[in-house]
Amino acid sequence: MTTQRYVYAFSEGRASQKSLLGGKGANLAEMCHIGLPVPPGFTLTTIACNAYTGLNALPDGLMDEVATALAALETATGKTLGDPKNPLLVSVRSGAAVSMPGMMDTVLNLGLNDATVQGLADATQNPRFAWDCYRRFLQMFGNVVLGLGLHEFERAFYARKEQCGAQSDPEVPAEVLKQVAHDHQGIIQRLTGKPFPQDPREQLRAAICAVFESWNNPRAAVYRQLHKIPESLGTAVSVQSMAFGNLGDDSGTGVVFTRNPNTGDKEFYGEFLLNAQGEDVVAGIRTPLTISHLQETLPDAYRQLFETCELLERHYADMQDIEFTVERGRLYMLQCRIGKRTAQAAVQIAVDMVAEGLIEKEQALLRVDPSQIETLLHRRIDPKAQLDVIATGLPASPGAATGVMVMDPDEAVKQQKEGHKVILVRHETTPDDIHGMVASEGVLTARGGMTCHAAIVARGMGKPCIVGCEALRLDMAAGTLRAGGRTVKVGDIIAIDGGTGRVILGDVPLVDAQLSPAFQKLLGWADALRRLGVRANADNPADAQKARAFGAEGIGLCRTEHMFGQGGHEPERMAAVQEMILAETFEDRERALEKLFPMQLGDFLGIFRAMAPFPVTIRLLDPPLHEFLPAEEDLAVEVAVAHALNRDPGRAAVLLRKVRALAETNPMLGFRGVRLGIVYPEIYEMQVRAILTAAKQLTDAGVTVHAEIMVPLVGHVAELIPIRQMIEAVAREVAPDLKFLIGTMIEVPRAALTADEIAPYADFFSFGTNDLTQTTFGYSRDDAEGRFLAHYVAQKLLPENPFVALDQKGVGKLVKMAAELGRAAHPGIKLGICGEHGGEPSSIDFCHRIGLSYVSCSPFRVPVARLAAAQCAVRESGMQVSGSAI
Amino acid sequence: MTTQRYVYAFSEGRASQKSLLGGKGANLAEMCHIGLPVPPGFTLTTIACNAYTGLNALPDGLMDEVATALAALETATGKTLGDPKNPLLVSVRSGAAVSMPGMMDTVLNLGLNDATVQGLADATQNPRFAWDCYRRFLQMFGNVVLGLGLHEFERAFYARKEQCGAQSDPEVPAEVLKQVAHDHQGIIQRLTGKPFPQDPREQLRAAICAVFESWNNPRAAVYRQLHKIPESLGTAVSVQSMAFGNLGDDSGTGVVFTRNPNTGDKEFYGEFLLNAQGEDVVAGIRTPLTISHLQETLPDAYRQLFETCELLERHYADMQDIEFTVERGRLYMLQCRIGKRTAQAAVQIAVDMVAEGLIEKEQALLRVDPSQIETLLHRRIDPKAQLDVIATGLPASPGAATGVMVMDPDEAVKQQKEGHKVILVRHETTPDDIHGMVASEGVLTARGGMTCHAAIVARGMGKPCIVGCEALRLDMAAGTLRAGGRTVKVGDIIAIDGGTGRVILGDVPLVDAQLSPAFQKLLGWADALRRLGVRANADNPADAQKARAFGAEGIGLCRTEHMFGQGGHEPERMAAVQEMILAETFEDRERALEKLFPMQLGDFLGIFRAMAPFPVTIRLLDPPLHEFLPAEEDLAVEVAVAHALNRDPGRAAVLLRKVRALAETNPMLGFRGVRLGIVYPEIYEMQVRAILTAAKQLTDAGVTVHAEIMVPLVGHVAELIPIRQMIEAVAREVAPDLKFLIGTMIEVPRAALTADEIAPYADFFSFGTNDLTQTTFGYSRDDAEGRFLAHYVAQKLLPENPFVALDQKGVGKLVKMAAELGRAAHPGIKLGICGEHGGEPSSIDFCHRIGLSYVSCSPFRVPVARLAAAQCAVRESGMQVSGSAI
Repeated sequence: MTTQRYVYAFSEGRASQKSLLGGKGANLAEMCHIGLPVPPGFTLTTIACNAYTGLNALPDGLMDEVATALAALETATGKTLGDPKNPLLVSVRSGAAVSMPGMMDTVLNLGLNDATVQGLADATQNPRFAWDCYRRFLQMFGNVVLGLGLHEFERAFYARKEQCGAQSDPEVPAEVLKQVAHDHQGIIQRLTGKPFPQDPREQLRAAICAVFESWNNPRAAVYRQLHKIPESLGTAVSVQSMAFGNLGDDSGTGVVFTRNPNTGDKEFYGEFLLNAQGEDVVAGIRTPLTISHLQETLPDAYRQLFETCELLERHYADMQDIEFTVERGRLYMLQCRIGKRTAQAAVQIAVDMVAEGLIEKEQALLRVDPSQIETLLHRRIDPKAQLDVIATGLPASPGAATGVMVMDPDEAVKQQKEGHKVILVRHETTPDDIHGMVASEGVLTARGGMTCHAAIVARGMGKPCIVGCEALRLDMAAGTLRAGGRTVKVGDIIAIDGGTGRVILGDVPLVDAQLSPAFQKLLGWADALRRLGVRANADNPADAQKARAFGAEGIGLCRTEHMFGQGGHEPERMAAVQEMILAETFEDRERALEKLFPMQLGDFLGIFRAMAPFPVTIRLLDPPLHEFLPAEEDLAVEVAVAHALNRDPGRAAVLLRKVRALAETNPMLGFRGVRLGIVYPEIYEMQVRAILTAAKQLTDAGVTVHAEIMVPLVGHVAELIPIRQMIEAVAREVAPDLKFLIGTMIEVPRAALTADEIAPYADFFSFGTNDLTQTTFGYSRDDAEGRFLAHYVAQKLLPENPFVALDQKGVGKLVKMAAELGRAAHPGIKLGICGEHGGEPSSIDFCHRIGLSYVSCSPFRVPVARLAAAQCAVRESGMQVSGSAI
Repeated sequence: MTTQRYVYAFSEGRASQKSLLGGKGANLAEMCHIGLPVPPGFTLTTIACNAYTGLNALPDGLMDEVATALAALETATGKTLGDPKNPLLVSVRSGAAVSMPGMMDTVLNLGLNDATVQGLADATQNPRFAWDCYRRFLQMFGNVVLGLGLHEFERAFYARKEQCGAQSDPEVPAEVLKQVAHDHQGIIQRLTGKPFPQDPREQLRAAICAVFESWNNPRAAVYRQLHKIPESLGTAVSVQSMAFGNLGDDSGTGVVFTRNPNTGDKEFYGEFLLNAQGEDVVAGIRTPLTISHLQETLPDAYRQLFETCELLERHYADMQDIEFTVERGRLYMLQCRIGKRTAQAAVQIAVDMVAEGLIEKEQALLRVDPSQIETLLHRRIDPKAQLDVIATGLPASPGAATGVMVMDPDEAVKQQKEGHKVILVRHETTPDDIHGMVASEGVLTARGGMTCHAAIVARGMGKPCIVGCEALRLDMAAGTLRAGGRTVKVGDIIAIDGGTGRVILGDVPLVDAQLSPAFQKLLGWADALRRLGVRANADNPADAQKARAFGAEGIGLCRTEHMFGQGGHEPERMAAVQEMILAETFEDRERALEKLFPMQLGDFLGIFRAMAPFPVTIRLLDPPLHEFLPAEEDLAVEVAVAHALNRDPGRAAVLLRKVRALAETNPMLGFRGVRLGIVYPEIYEMQVRAILTAAKQLTDAGVTVHAEIMVPLVGHVAELIPIRQMIEAVAREVAPDLKFLIGTMIEVPRAALTADEIAPYADFFSFGTNDLTQTTFGYSRDDAEGRFLAHYVAQKLLPENPFVALDQKGVGKLVKMAAELGRAAHPGIKLGICGEHGGEPSSIDFCHRIGLSYVSCSPFRVPVARLAAAQCAVRESGMQVSGSAI
């Protein structure tokens, strides 16, 4: 029987048995174990659930075990299931190993029938209470166990309530509740064709089956997919004797957190309802009172609750989320679990608990989810601002944005070209809207869930996004949005907060993220423990400063294309760059490059100074040259229209010819990176001269400079060798004594596959996992995310968007191979990653495991990376997180 | 001394010692060994050459060994070097292990000086002969050993010749030749500042150094690069006593092949000059006679030569290229080597020699270079046509083409759009000309070598190309080409033959390749020996027929995009396809697909019938949908112009909107392949239904059909699984008993890296090495070849264009990994390759070695693949090719 045991009394289990007893069952057992007032009961294991799922029937022996456990329960409580004199009532609750709030079903007050309801009335001397329990049970049994809609039951209750003139539920008298119970039995008979089962054992058996089945209800299945919870876990079922919060004004029920789950402050936080059962709190029919009111109403119960909570928090060494019931002044604990919390609270609680001596620093680090704290690091709405919130949707991609409302993607592009910031509002987005999403500051949709097209694409683009904002009424033809009784027209200013889902009317001030003192302290601990270095990707001194403020230890990727005027904000640079591109001869190109040299020198002086004494990795020019010229189609239209109107197209015709000559079918795979440097060595030569001249000038002035020159897109060692020779030749000329590094990006598969050939010529490798993901999958990120990738992720064809979380099986295999080949051929080679994955926790874990030297990510993700890297080190040291905090 | 021996007498060596003695030295030794009349001599080894190159001086002991060998030579000939009475004269010739014709230097008549010339005159009783030898030697020594230009020497000779009124060289009398010799010594004194060295031993030493140095002259270095000959081989130097063909009319010199090197016919083929030395034949000053004339002039010598040639051919079991001299009626053999031959001759000779019992079939197969026979398989000019050849350039890319001459790439595009075939003529091409090359039938340039931009790009595109046609005089402004005294204008029809380099004026008839009976026989032997299967890539019944005629054993890649109207030749298909793309709803798309179904059914019936009973691999739709719509820029211009002129843009505006919505930045990495099949399953479902319906109908009619359905661009197993399920569902419905295969292309790196996950769901893998090369290198073929790849190949940064020869280190590593992972996870999985590499010999060798089941290539390369595959099998069995034939 031991191997096949399906049922455990609460007194037999412990908190560590979550996978067998479910979270709820294990914690009830633990509370029993430490002597807290838990109504007695027993738990059917997850193994029983899996057996049920496999057989599609209750396994042999299960109900015998239930009968034995029930007999013990009857002995303990002195009540008997179905006893018309002193009936035992029980709750039947689901509870998986992993918390899935509200996803599965629960039945309360089981054991009532036409006979026992009378016994209950007699025993409690409270007929109203007994009939209230009975009508609740009938409704819940009908809904959960028999699968009937709630609607008919509620209608029947409201009809009677109205009939008798009651304003609120407690005003409905016992007789009316008795009629309601009768009505409900009629509904069950009518809709199922069978009478309500009067036999409490039959009720119990049916309820157990229903809860097992709720493991596979569609809601739960979707939730598991979303949170990557294995289907094989199964749910446990806890059968517990009822404690009644609805026995009068000395009774009540509530939920309490041991700390504030929003701010993390050390304060008792929660709410309760007098004379109520649990589902009244959830249903929101009556407004609960804050927990401090309990102190006034039932001071003894409050004191007992407070002490129990303190004990539980110390026992679990984590903030607890507790359900309790007070029955005639006596406290009963119905559930405890690790409390969910905001990112801010997670940080605060972790740091405070170290100060309180409850946990170690290492545990504190594991208590905070790095991907959650990213929301603290985006620009957000000024907390001091007055907001006119008109609706709230699903927070699909964090950060805040404000701009002109547009409803058409083409219009978004047009407005953005005219210099306006826009927020794109749609019923939902499709691949046809991509260009509009690119042009927008943020996206708001009325429909869709957390994995809809808009959500996935916006997250990929790093843009704020709210989806599934069902309160919005959109009229695309009229160009209006109605919500909260307000009407917004296209062209009006709105704001969205992708971290909370709030839609706000009017302009709002945005503020950059600040690191709280607690967060600073936590990151300090992280820095002391992590093995991975953390750098930032930054292209200018301002970004470098921001990165330093967030704790970056260097720049892992400084792109020089923006210095070449990409973005078009510096016309004199753009002019020099275009002059270089249009040059017909080597001499003309050299002349244009001479104009660019002092600008580049200034760029590098600025960034070295901003980052000193940390290293700065500068990538030589990467994008194809046509990116610095106007778009072909615009020029073609300009020329064609000029011709049609008999005008001279002028310079447009010259530019068009050059743009056509440079045009590429697939620029991502075209004439860019080191390929430019090989064919036009004078461009790279100018850049290298500027880098080394800047480094030399600052070094001579006493500033510490660690320059790392990075050659992009190398796929064959023969591409790196001549560039390295050129760099060394320039160095001999302008800065013969300067120490600096020469390395390459590993961003096409061939570079990874032949890393052993490349490594002898590289002081470092930096994995460009954005491009490496594009080439390894054969996905153009620009094209994939909006078109098929959103579909793939939503359909779970891919477990993750590989541009967000590194694809370890494919891309990661190449990275690992390259790291191994590189190190074997060049011991001591420095290895880093500068793709956006460098700021994503699961990818950072991968980088840690394969032994990279550092990760580099956008400045606002640097704290994420510091924390994630520290967690890797802690986990590696064997420390287990005590309960998943979030 | 043994380990360090530098000099071998001819009598000491054998033919097998080519790497030590060079080809020439080893063959002279072999001829000695078998008793042929070879003037005696000795050879300085290639090791001596490498020592000289390393030291930049003759190694210690070398000249002592030369002295010893010379003494033996003097004993053998009865003459002494520098003896004024009976002087020994020698030739000093280069000779590497691998033939490098004309690349290195040779000195004849060495040993002459002011004293020995008199002795030679006396000994031969022929003063004219002696002075002729002397003036030749002085000129050659001045040129080869002292590095002086030929010009001054020739001018001096012609001045004297003119002075004395001689019409031809033999008419110049002894006294005048004596004056010429005097003139030449003056030239040497004047240009080098030193007198001509009278000491024959000093002459010999200087000549040996000069020949060693000629190994590294620029010509030889380029030739080695081009033919991938390692620099480390070095050249040997043969010192041989002179035989004189210029001793009168009973003397002569010539070159003879044992078979016709152009046709392969078994006939004595060659030419000779009476009373001449070797360089006269080469210099082309006098017109040589065909070898049959020797029979009339010197019948004994002819007979002896004929017999010797027969003996040599039998001895070497291959066609020989022989140099001989007749001195006063006596035959001397100066050189023999494996004769170079055309592809046609190579095939004919190999097959004939098997018939004659000279070689085995396996050897015959190894005797033909598969990459050379490709020239036999392209369309070519009708051999019966009268041609007006106006110039000849370098044959850079085989095949023939005819069309309108254009000189501007934009014009080429325009003419091609108007339906004309065009030949693009340029001084040389640059990346800016790519679109013009794409639009042309063939390319002709006045400049450039075999690895110039035009050559590489055209070879990549498979277009005929002639480069470096120096005879062309181009006037781009006037739009004219002059050559051979003719003027061609833009718009005139020209033809080019890329296999021979001929430029032809006017239209010429082209004919498809025919396989000669000998070739058919050879391929029959190949088929019996090879392990690799050979299939063809063919999209329609006509191509399938062609492929069968060339011996294909199935279709490895049948692309369905052309059936979708790509190319635009079938308006009603295009209309249905566009209707499908423009469909806004699933129902509209289904309706459009219903129209396409019968067309597709017809397509598949046709191709299955044409290929029965061989397997046909059909790839489901691959290209992005926007490829089936008009170009965005054209539509944008149409709309803009309509607006500018206040006209209604009509349907163009609708199409533009859809094209913009579908537009992709990098279509190669975009919404195509299986990604289409996942997002719009109804498209693939229609195709699968058509394939299986066709297979069923034919099977029911008794035709053998092996359908293989191939899913393109799978990168993750989760993409393949639902498509496989769909295919199986359709099969259950339309053809439940039909046997067919479901497989996938491996064409993105991730598919190769995770082949173990994909293999369980695939009956076969087909390596799409074109796309795999694009993604592994990160090269867009369209963009790379014209821009940087031509530069890379020309600069030897890459050893080969990876789109032509499979990059074994990078792409090949992935292919091998995928084959191994795939077989481990799914024993018995069928593995093939359908990229263009499937027809390239080095790539086929790779496929053989990693154990693929078959290669598939374009129909005209099927014979190449059959031969190459057989060679792999023969080489694997350990058979060595006896002398590289070509």
